[in-house]
Amino acid sequence: MIRAGIYGATGYVGYELVKLLHGHPQVEIAFATSQSSAGARLSDLYPCPYDLPLIAPEDVDLGGVDVAFQCLPHGESMSAVAQVRAADVKAVDLSADFRLQDVGVYEQWYKVSHTAADLLGEAVYGLTEVYRDQIAGASLVACPGCYPTSVLLALYPLARGGHLDDGRIIVDSKSGTSGRGRKLSQGSLFVEVNEDFRPYSIGRAHRHLPEMEQELAAWGCADVRVTFSPHLLPVNRGILSTIYVTLEPGWSVERLVATYREQYAGEPFVHVLPEGKLASLAYVANTNRCAISFAQVGDDEFVLVSAIDNLLKGASGQALQCMNLMFGLDETMGLPR
Amino acid sequence: MIRAGIYGATGYVGYELVKLLHGHPQVEIAFATSQSSAGARLSDLYPCPYDLPLIAPEDVDLGGVDVAFQCLPHGESMSAVAQVRAADVKAVDLSADFRLQDVGVYEQWYKVSHTAADLLGEAVYGLTEVYRDQIAGASLVACPGCYPTSVLLALYPLARGGHLDDGRIIVDSKSGTSGRGRKLSQGSLFVEVNEDFRPYSIGRAHRHLPEMEQELAAWGCADVRVTFSPHLLPVNRGILSTIYVTLEPGWSVERLVATYREQYAGEPFVHVLPEGKLASLAYVANTNRCAISFAQVGDDEFVLVSAIDNLLKGASGQALQCMNLMFGLDETMGLPR
Amino acid sequence: MIRAGIYGATGYVGYELVKLLHGHPQVEIAFATSQSSAGARLSDLYPCPYDLPLIAPEDVDLGGVDVAFQCLPHGESMSAVAQVRAADVKAVDLSADFRLQDVGVYEQWYKVSHTAADLLGEAVYGLTEVYRDQIAGASLVACPGCYPTSVLLALYPLARGGHLDDGRIIVDSKSGTSGRGRKLSQGSLFVEVNEDFRPYSIGRAHRHLPEMEQELAAWGCADVRVTFSPHLLPVNRGILSTIYVTLEPGWSVERLVATYREQYAGEPFVHVLPEGKLASLAYVANTNRCAISFAQVGDDEFVLVSAIDNLLKGASGQALQCMNLMFGLDETMGLPR
Amino acid sequence: MIRAGIYGATGYVGYELVKLLHGHPQVEIAFATSQSSAGARLSDLYPCPYDLPLIAPEDVDLGGVDVAFQCLPHGESMSAVAQVRAADVKAVDLSADFRLQDVGVYEQWYKVSHTAADLLGEAVYGLTEVYRDQIAGASLVACPGCYPTSVLLALYPLARGGHLDDGRIIVDSKSGTSGRGRKLSQGSLFVEVNEDFRPYSIGRAHRHLPEMEQELAAWGCADVRVTFSPHLLPVNRGILSTIYVTLEPGWSVERLVATYREQYAGEPFVHVLPEGKLASLAYVANTNRCAISFAQVGDDEFVLVSAIDNLLKGASGQALQCMNLMFGLDETMGLPR
Repeated sequence: MIRAGIYGATGYVGYELVKLLHGHPQVEIAFATSQSSAGARLSDLYPCPYDLPLIAPEDVDLGGVDVAFQCLPHGESMSAVAQVRAADVKAVDLSADFRLQDVGVYEQWYKVSHTAADLLGEAVYGLTEVYRDQIAGASLVACPGCYPTSVLLALYPLARGGHLDDGRIIVDSKSGTSGRGRKLSQGSLFVEVNEDFRPYSIGRAHRHLPEMEQELAAWGCADVRVTFSPHLLPVNRGILSTIYVTLEPGWSVERLVATYREQYAGEPFVHVLPEGKLASLAYVANTNRCAISFAQVGDDEFVLVSAIDNLLKGASGQALQCMNLMFGLDETMGLPR
Repeated sequence: MIRAGIYGATGYVGYELVKLLHGHPQVEIAFATSQSSAGARLSDLYPCPYDLPLIAPEDVDLGGVDVAFQCLPHGESMSAVAQVRAADVKAVDLSADFRLQDVGVYEQWYKVSHTAADLLGEAVYGLTEVYRDQIAGASLVACPGCYPTSVLLALYPLARGGHLDDGRIIVDSKSGTSGRGRKLSQGSLFVEVNEDFRPYSIGRAHRHLPEMEQELAAWGCADVRVTFSPHLLPVNRGILSTIYVTLEPGWSVERLVATYREQYAGEPFVHVLPEGKLASLAYVANTNRCAISFAQVGDDEFVLVSAIDNLLKGASGQALQCMNLMFGLDETMGLPR
Repeated sequence: MIRAGIYGATGYVGYELVKLLHGHPQVEIAFATSQSSAGARLSDLYPCPYDLPLIAPEDVDLGGVDVAFQCLPHGESMSAVAQVRAADVKAVDLSADFRLQDVGVYEQWYKVSHTAADLLGEAVYGLTEVYRDQIAGASLVACPGCYPTSVLLALYPLARGGHLDDGRIIVDSKSGTSGRGRKLSQGSLFVEVNEDFRPYSIGRAHRHLPEMEQELAAWGCADVRVTFSPHLLPVNRGILSTIYVTLEPGWSVERLVATYREQYAGEPFVHVLPEGKLASLAYVANTNRCAISFAQVGDDEFVLVSAIDNLLKGASGQALQCMNLMFGLDETMGLPR
Repeated sequence: MIRAGIYGATGYVGYELVKLLHGHPQVEIAFATSQSSAGARLSDLYPCPYDLPLIAPEDVDLGGVDVAFQCLPHGESMSAVAQVRAADVKAVDLSADFRLQDVGVYEQWYKVSHTAADLLGEAVYGLTEVYRDQIAGASLVACPGCYPTSVLLALYPLARGGHLDDGRIIVDSKSGTSGRGRKLSQGSLFVEVNEDFRPYSIGRAHRHLPEMEQELAAWGCADVRVTFSPHLLPVNRGILSTIYVTLEPGWSVERLVATYREQYAGEPFVHVLPEGKLASLAYVANTNRCAISFAQVGDDEFVLVSAIDNLLKGASGQALQCMNLMFGLDETMGLPR
């Protein structure tokens, strides 16, 4: 059995991870931390039967622990990761702290100093479908952000093939409300979200933007500029990204489907839809899948539509997928398909 | 023009009242207070075009004010009411502070000392369909709670006719989430309420219970005991109460419809449904109406179903209905039917 | 591998069963029928990756099939069951056709003639927590209705202990909209259900009433009369039943918790909540669990609150639980806990 | 009193119009038609107190009628309009039949022959903020489509100022489910829409596209090509359009706000938000307003966000606004602000 610890078990991402690990046949939970609810049990905080005790982060004993997940806010995660790595325990970080390889870019966007920049060199970006081999050998995985996961999986086959025009890509994304986390905020209240739909941080203001551009650059598209408009959806789970791209002449939806099916052949969690169908949240809710689909606008204009469950493929599911790889397990173990 | 002030304009009830008063042809808003947001404008707090300035309660100038509404939490309202009445300004209180005539009962249920008990004598319970004449002459109206409004309008014709059995009445109520108010609480977050449905304070634990029993006693049913089970609905607005009563032999749905239509003849905001139809939130959402309906279970067992919009007939709409009466206006002025 | 067929794979219950069977390690789907969509694939009808071919019921080949599930409307299921049993294939029927042992009662409530009444004798009522041994040996299981499952699991420990008063029990139930099925109806449209909440068939009008009273009678409570009020909730999944009972003096919530925990000790899918907590849909959504909880009203009056996921414990999950028993498998196999 | 008839009173648009007309102080309803429910009353079809009798369209008597609204599907509306105009009754058509001035374009997109093309010459496009004077003098008004209303009000100030780049504009729109109408369809069922979010007819496939391009051409932007991606939102009401435009250098959000406020100065139903705020459905739900806002992406790239209530400003509210103008009434009469 793999003994796994969870830092930050009481947010939506942490709670989702607890549920996944409970159902995983090869994992047992070594510890679960909560800064604000240490001493309580998870069943005190969520309507669930998990009487998992919550301990303060400073009371963690890493002896005998194989892997630790950080489900912490950015800025708080880096010290937990450093502590875990110092104890030679593998780390799967779900925060933003190790996603951006350039410390300056990180500090500019996240407004905090990076206190564990020496670990960036060993951090592998946990997008399994792109970096599977590196993840398998990694000691520290930086799980992609939820929006970037939905966008990058949709762009990767075109980017790596050199097909993306060097201009701008417009990404109009819509996320379920669990993406805002469990912290108290008027904008997260039921009455404010229900029957509303609102944009936020649109243009080039959202912190997931540099992450997308970093990966696009790594894939040979350093000159692509992303316009990114997130919106808040009155649903619990899911991200749908509608992506507007310009391609060189000669593309069609048929060719896109064929190209993506070839690229993602054998991928257990990528579902390339046939021509005539468009991805929607219902394709992926409560699964670890990403659904990708296409529409043609003009000769060189296309729309890509991709959907994921933000708590699974966009966070805890993807993290577990990485962990499975890091321990040589079947990549799909414990994950809802 | 009637000059109306609002204490506590930034909660859901206060905001609803602002919207109603803006559309009222005979009212202008004299002031609007907010403890926490004094200095801001209402449009800073809500997605709306109302640039209404918010002032601290201590900065209120009651000169030239005709009426003040208290949309404050219980315990805080009583001092605002006292101040308003001392200035000989009429008061319409939407809190619980003047609903219970027995100070002891109030203090037992609400766990605060009543500092304005001397005003209880002039307080009229603002259930228009029962106390219309008293309200018209009142200087201080205590608006009924949202649950009691839905329950009492459904029980009044039977109670005053002496038809309610002296045993227990079971009230199974379901309220939309605006009933929880705008204060921050994990239980009010979208992700926690959406796709959930949960009971709370069931049995004889909810503070609206003594208010219902007070009125039933006033209507000659001092021995009726209410079992009251509120539940939280994943909708913004509305209360539906399913009420189980025992009647003496000889009743039928047909007779109930006839009795209620006679009792409520001419009432602009009571909608007695015909046999075969049952009230639902859709009958009343965004209106000041109460819909009432009936089903027969056995010879002497019946179910009454009533529905209101908790922010309108259950709060601000009813308050404005009272204000209209207090100033000799058409009772329906400014109210959505 | 168990080869399982599904009659009626395209309703919500059938689709849920397909998803469960796809994840079950010991089952392969032998066939899936659809009257209206024969020739199509499931992925044509639902946003999913299951390219399962749908065949007409008359094209079913039962050779090599071990078990067949009937996810059909009442009245249609009985002939499929008869055919399946004639071929000596085990049957798990999710319709109402074999739930009521008394043909007369069935025909009175369901308004159809029973054409396979000879099979009623071998039908076992599939409430696992009550009839586990009989189910394990059964060839034909009649899965309980969704509402009765939520109500009967909550009443069983009291009924079998002889503690239920011989008077009436009031059951106020609320069901998610998937309970209405996928057939087209104005009352099932999003705009009609969303932000509404409505009662229907209340009193003694709903077809699940005789099923509840049949079981209560079997458990020694032949004189208990149930008042049953279902309501439609604007959520996809879940049933919550608020049940009002009278008990003899001496009961408390503490004793109820103890009694239920003893009765349901070791049950993998029953979650008896501790004193102070109340069941809600969030406890059970997307799981096969039933959550049960209690509140005291007066000396002899109590409220039981139970919750299930209507598509899992209330339908397909329970059916699979029965199948696992019928084939000697771990009862929890393939079921979300 | 203006005597107004309604063709097609039982769809969502027709029902919304009935509610508005009931509250309008200068209108009485002369007749309301329903093809499928003639003989019934509106209260048989909707949870409402309006016992309005529904007649078959062939039983309409236009004697004494001042104006008739057509809330009919495209293709069906044109004959009702022709009949109404033949009787010299004013017509406000809410279908698409008279929106497109080019019959060829209409027939190509709507796949029906236009049988009243001779009336196109007198049809005025009912976008009040642009064509107020023409509407005031019109006998036949073609109300804009819901999506075009949200898009065109957001583009008009830029288009008429000659500021729109001649390239493509990307419009990513999201509509509440009432936009699908009340006709039965699996895609409109609560369970299919709730917790989902899906694109449809994206690219250049939706029938509202030629309507937008017709108006842009009329405003001097004949070379602008629109990419239009509608999505279905799990809310009852509202359309939010996120619009990506390229402008010549020198623009800023500040200048956009100033330009739009000047253009729309005095408009009772246009709300230009200040810099730093973005429109959302909550700004406009249940009102006849359009909210417009801006964000800057790069030197020459901007995002416009506009929101309307699709049943009010996007349909019945706008229609009533037109009617008010046609009869010399205050434009805002009977309309929720």
